Amino acid sequence: MRSFSDTLIDHIITKSSITCVGIDPEVQVGSKTSPIPAFLVEESGGNIGETIHTFFKDIIDQVTDIVPIFKFQMAFFEKFDALSALKALIDDVHQRKGLVIIDAKRNDISSTSEAYATAIFEGMQADATTVNGYLGSDCVLPFLKYEGRGVFVLVKTSNPSSGEFQDLFSIAIPSLAPEITEIDAPRGKLVRNYLQMARLVGTWGAKSIGGKKYSDVGAVVGATYPTQMKQVRQVIPQNFLLIPGYGTQGGTAADIVHGVNLDGFGAIVNSSRGIDYAYQKNAGKYTPRQYAAAAREAVEGMNVDIRSALRTSKKSSW
Amino acid sequence: MRSFSDTLIDHIITKSSITCVGIDPEVQVGSKTSPIPAFLVEESGGNIGETIHTFFKDIIDQVTDIVPIFKFQMAFFEKFDALSALKALIDDVHQRKGLVIIDAKRNDISSTSEAYATAIFEGMQADATTVNGYLGSDCVLPFLKYEGRGVFVLVKTSNPSSGEFQDLFSIAIPSLAPEITEIDAPRGKLVRNYLQMARLVGTWGAKSIGGKKYSDVGAVVGATYPTQMKQVRQVIPQNFLLIPGYGTQGGTAADIVHGVNLDGFGAIVNSSRGIDYAYQKNAGKYTPRQYAAAAREAVEGMNVDIRSALRTSKKSSW
Repeated sequence: MRSFSDTLIDHIITKSSITCVGIDPEVQVGSKTSPIPAFLVEESGGNIGETIHTFFKDIIDQVTDIVPIFKFQMAFFEKFDALSALKALIDDVHQRKGLVIIDAKRNDISSTSEAYATAIFEGMQADATTVNGYLGSDCVLPFLKYEGRGVFVLVKTSNPSSGEFQDLFSIAIPSLAPEITEIDAPRGKLVRNYLQMARLVGTWGAKSIGGKKYSDVGAVVGATYPTQMKQVRQVIPQNFLLIPGYGTQGGTAADIVHGVNLDGFGAIVNSSRGIDYAYQKNAGKYTPRQYAAAAREAVEGMNVDIRSALRTSKKSSW
Repeated sequence: MRSFSDTLIDHIITKSSITCVGIDPEVQVGSKTSPIPAFLVEESGGNIGETIHTFFKDIIDQVTDIVPIFKFQMAFFEKFDALSALKALIDDVHQRKGLVIIDAKRNDISSTSEAYATAIFEGMQADATTVNGYLGSDCVLPFLKYEGRGVFVLVKTSNPSSGEFQDLFSIAIPSLAPEITEIDAPRGKLVRNYLQMARLVGTWGAKSIGGKKYSDVGAVVGATYPTQMKQVRQVIPQNFLLIPGYGTQGGTAADIVHGVNLDGFGAIVNSSRGIDYAYQKNAGKYTPRQYAAAAREAVEGMNVDIRSALRTSKKSSW
């Protein structure tokens, strides 16, 4: 079984890109400024699932040769009751030899966590998924049973309030917490919660280091927190970072560079709305019908932007 | 808009019970010891969704007069691709005037978190749901916009590895973490992570205290950790605890008593497999066809068990 990280690195090299295109369906029925354009809803006779499929299939077709991986946001597919469209789009990506992350942030324990892993890796055929590690190993290990699939654990998320809990300083005190014995928490030393979580990621990922020296267990770290990203990068050098928050949320290419190792690997950078709905931002140049061409231009711009920032910081690109 | 906690308390009084019946569908096709019995799969012509609906509709019918609330485990409905059965069962509970928690442990930020809230509260019509608070207010607040609905945030989960992260001692240091200013983290004092999360629950729930003095924001605390439950109860006295881990996982009525206030309210206690598949444990008395009667006996036993433990500890019952 080929490791997820090895396959991901192959795709990065082939596509010369670490861009991850986020698929975030948003339809506002009856609105002229609906992100997925109103004409597509009309042409599908009001079928939202079909509308979503058409829109993103076109985008995937347009960008697949310059993008190694796509991230599907489960929340929007659930909101629009469009799980059939999700399955069809995952199939579309796989036919075009791309990789798929389902961003579902699932978390539960033992057989329940297994059920989520089954739904995502068998039912949906995702190559990777996101997981919330607050419940510990009982949550994460069932996902790791799927060899060759990737798991990205939330570490330092991109949102403004992520610090409320993730930035607390925490400490493992063995005499008071004898149950914390097997993990890599530094004893008697205060470390922020997100770094404690990063250490757990290192432990969970130690068994799945691929031939190219990266693990199949990664971490989610927001582009909006470059300093924290640098720390996480040091603590878990062999784990891929999935970096949201580039573009719309304010993260820049100079920020994400801290997540990339000197070899040019170790990070993928997600942009969702900045690509999906690029036709709206660039309305002088593109009509709503040209959404796929606008998305391609946005991906090309992002690829150039990241490659240039890597060059500036003397890190390899691909 | 009536608050969720007021409605829950009405149901507790009417049913004289704080038992929450967990609906955890498990079918092993082709196995004679399948939890949902094989004969039901055959009778539905192999339709798993229909099998799940029949089995749990019968159980809900049998126990609804002695149970205030049902908790549906989303993972299993996703595993079996049975979301139509989930919707139908939620409708069945509502027709019988019961309350519904969807246990989905969702978590994301801003518009994505809103999409999950929409899917669960509008799409599925749940009265309450579970949420993972690792991402902070940006995750939880979109759920709280649905007035009159309940939100249970994971605090100290019932599983063996919950301590890996939740039991770390943590501290808010204002000079180092100025972004942590609005929450109720005790400055300069080491408090375990799960209690920090409990404090956040108190803050999030402060705006939704109902007429009966309980909040619509609650906390998940496992029956397997009675000492920790006692601490959480003290830190957030006005927030309901959803207590998993009774029965199969090892929690007892004497354990869960620590989650109940002197007035007899403030906790609901979940059992899933111990009720759903009681016919298997009690095979001498019940045939597989009598699963609903076996489930009723299990609920009656649990109600008596909890009432007796409350009497012993001089807490009110209902």
